[in-house]
Amino acid sequence: MDAADAVTELAQALPAGVVATEPDVVEKYRHDWTHDARAGMPLAAVRAESAEHVQETLRWATRHGIGVVPRGAGTSLSGGSMGVEGAVVLSLERMRAVEVDVAARVAVVEPGALNVEVKRAAAAHGLWYPPDPSSFEICSIGGNIATNAGGLCCVKYGVTTDYVLGLDVVLADGTLLTLGGPRVKDVAGLSLLKLFVGSEGTLGVVTRAVLRLVPAQAPRSTVVAFFPTVAAAAAAVVELGRTVRASMVELMDRASVNAVEDFQPMGLDRDAGALLLIQSDAPGPSRAEEVEVIVTACEVSGAKEVVATDDPEEAEMFVQARRAHFTALEQRGAVLPEDVGVPVPHLPALLAELEAIAQRHAVEIPVVAHAGDGNTHPAIVYDPTDHDAERRARLAFDDVMHAAIRLGGTITGEHGVGRLKAGCLEHQLGPEVMALNRRVKAALDPDGILNPGSFV
Amino acid sequence: MDAADAVTELAQALPAGVVATEPDVVEKYRHDWTHDARAGMPLAAVRAESAEHVQETLRWATRHGIGVVPRGAGTSLSGGSMGVEGAVVLSLERMRAVEVDVAARVAVVEPGALNVEVKRAAAAHGLWYPPDPSSFEICSIGGNIATNAGGLCCVKYGVTTDYVLGLDVVLADGTLLTLGGPRVKDVAGLSLLKLFVGSEGTLGVVTRAVLRLVPAQAPRSTVVAFFPTVAAAAAAVVELGRTVRASMVELMDRASVNAVEDFQPMGLDRDAGALLLIQSDAPGPSRAEEVEVIVTACEVSGAKEVVATDDPEEAEMFVQARRAHFTALEQRGAVLPEDVGVPVPHLPALLAELEAIAQRHAVEIPVVAHAGDGNTHPAIVYDPTDHDAERRARLAFDDVMHAAIRLGGTITGEHGVGRLKAGCLEHQLGPEVMALNRRVKAALDPDGILNPGSFV
Repeated sequence: MDAADAVTELAQALPAGVVATEPDVVEKYRHDWTHDARAGMPLAAVRAESAEHVQETLRWATRHGIGVVPRGAGTSLSGGSMGVEGAVVLSLERMRAVEVDVAARVAVVEPGALNVEVKRAAAAHGLWYPPDPSSFEICSIGGNIATNAGGLCCVKYGVTTDYVLGLDVVLADGTLLTLGGPRVKDVAGLSLLKLFVGSEGTLGVVTRAVLRLVPAQAPRSTVVAFFPTVAAAAAAVVELGRTVRASMVELMDRASVNAVEDFQPMGLDRDAGALLLIQSDAPGPSRAEEVEVIVTACEVSGAKEVVATDDPEEAEMFVQARRAHFTALEQRGAVLPEDVGVPVPHLPALLAELEAIAQRHAVEIPVVAHAGDGNTHPAIVYDPTDHDAERRARLAFDDVMHAAIRLGGTITGEHGVGRLKAGCLEHQLGPEVMALNRRVKAALDPDGILNPGSFV
Repeated sequence: MDAADAVTELAQALPAGVVATEPDVVEKYRHDWTHDARAGMPLAAVRAESAEHVQETLRWATRHGIGVVPRGAGTSLSGGSMGVEGAVVLSLERMRAVEVDVAARVAVVEPGALNVEVKRAAAAHGLWYPPDPSSFEICSIGGNIATNAGGLCCVKYGVTTDYVLGLDVVLADGTLLTLGGPRVKDVAGLSLLKLFVGSEGTLGVVTRAVLRLVPAQAPRSTVVAFFPTVAAAAAAVVELGRTVRASMVELMDRASVNAVEDFQPMGLDRDAGALLLIQSDAPGPSRAEEVEVIVTACEVSGAKEVVATDDPEEAEMFVQARRAHFTALEQRGAVLPEDVGVPVPHLPALLAELEAIAQRHAVEIPVVAHAGDGNTHPAIVYDPTDHDAERRARLAFDDVMHAAIRLGGTITGEHGVGRLKAGCLEHQLGPEVMALNRRVKAALDPDGILNPGSFV
């Protein structure tokens, strides 16, 4: 049977409207946020409406040896959900139920639900789902689980895996498994639940998640500190981490501040070498004490201006500026978004390396960072119509990853390896850990159906 | 080559004193804290002093098809490190270096180091390693990692896996891998790090761990509340979880209070149906506010006496009473320690079930619980010289596990499955998840060398 006939077979096995083959529809599932020109045209887009549809699709894919690219909201910045020639896209966008169990303090969620929808459902009961990628208003929980997504409050509250108590997962052969459940502690058997989190759709497809909720976050105070140099800001981050558990420690360098100011003027100091955006959510009166410690740490590290505010609206303006970073950069040209991380004490060295790389390749690399976690987002901006600029940008992209590895770091702190960084993964992990990745992949997906061309 | 010759070969390959075969020495490695009569006599005890010794031992074991039981401090309560006939014990007790990197806020630790030694090393720098099993003064970090150990502060601060940033692991074939490192966020490749945590020595042997440290815990206030019934105490736990993040929520039922009072009189109310021991470590002045909320929640749920104290010594007395539970029970007879957990809202139902099981089998089942996590430690106490009592105790042990499963819970929240619960694991997981456990095990340890007879 040829591929087109196979797709017809799948379309007939599923309800009308689930499988799309019209080129204009399928085209919408070709790219994720990496907008990489190498994205292939999918054979079809399967918009599953239930776990059964997912099972049916994977059984069919195994039978025909056809690859399946699972997809949430398509906001991957690493090519994790971009189209693959000859494979189908399995979109979970229609599965977006969210149910909150207040007594058990969990949300039971379908993978297509957006992060913000889970947050809202929790908030309606005075509860909170902490993980907050910058894209939280448009990214899906399924994608968050696939990449073990982080965000801004993770410096205090941890990342996605810390909130996943249970998963329903469909394996490559169509088997539907339930792992974990609404139990805070459970060590029965291997930690398969944790293995699926961050597996980027290479081991199975999540059809349901049980997410831990916590009591609503206390009100926050916000500190914005402007430093003469990136190094001084990085030093303040290292200093801070010893004494307080701030609920946000974000960094923007000069180029990043200027890009945001160009896009959406807010009166930020364009001449500062870097700014830190720090929040404290310590409860009650102790918040003021924590803010004092934060302000002092910034001043001691050489901040030339430090502003503190308890006004949520003013604070949100600063956080919005930080979140607008990626959109602001997209106005300037094509963007290769990086996501490298290092041990926090090596943050100053990494930031210095980034400057050197930008100079070496004559490219612009504005940087924002979840600095408290040592996780940086250098973004290589280039003119897409200039072939040499693109070439230099790709060289810089690779150099950034290698710089992070040399500093004992990682090529990806929260975006995932996807397709864009697949070639560099072995440099970080080494051949033996890479081989173990492949052994586990082969044990779970022996035919290599799931997210082909991705990292493993 | 027979087994004795094989052991001689290993002894010659390793430095003098590493391999012990003298029966009186080997006998010390036969039992863990389960003291199960079915423990087998090991062929030899290998007391590794380095990762190389571990590699040498596993290569040798694979070559000869001899099983290896990894062992930390031998405090397993589930038979995870008890001796197996025809296998060697691989003890990590001599590998106990602890080094703190203050700037990176990590401890780099060998597996034989005790939990308390890591805590002390961190505290010397104003830092804190939170996980605190009741046995923290005598259990090893390697064992904590093997079981993904929990403890008393986990209700607010999470369990062992939340603090493991990196592991060196030796696979069954002797390959030494480094997974992760001193990076807070790292999603490069599959979450193999998390897979090894909680794998109970069935996938590899940990030779080094990089553990996340956090700033020292703030001073705590302690609330002790006495309730007329276990049900009322459990209701208070559910109530509490909605509003405050207490740093300890422990429960002791009447039988448990009385056992501790018999062993070490402290003037606890022997007539109360249950007591809750709750701590708040909210920073600064907000601690008093949180204590008020806790006291009110207890009173609303029917507590007949509520005591609050800021005195650390008085608080420590109560916590010691809670920790003395297991030792106190051992004075009363043989103990089958349970570790079942349920979703927090089902805690009252589980506690009611436990009373029914105790009556049905005419055994004593005192209960303590990390109640805030829904994780209970019913302990089945029986006269070891009375065969029928032992038989009834074992029936009760199984009934407790099945009751937890029926309530949507787990047979083990933090002790691990080990050998004592291996037979019940499939009842909880179901045949398909069990099969997936076996597939992953086979991918990593194809000859089944590691911790044979354990859960997978």
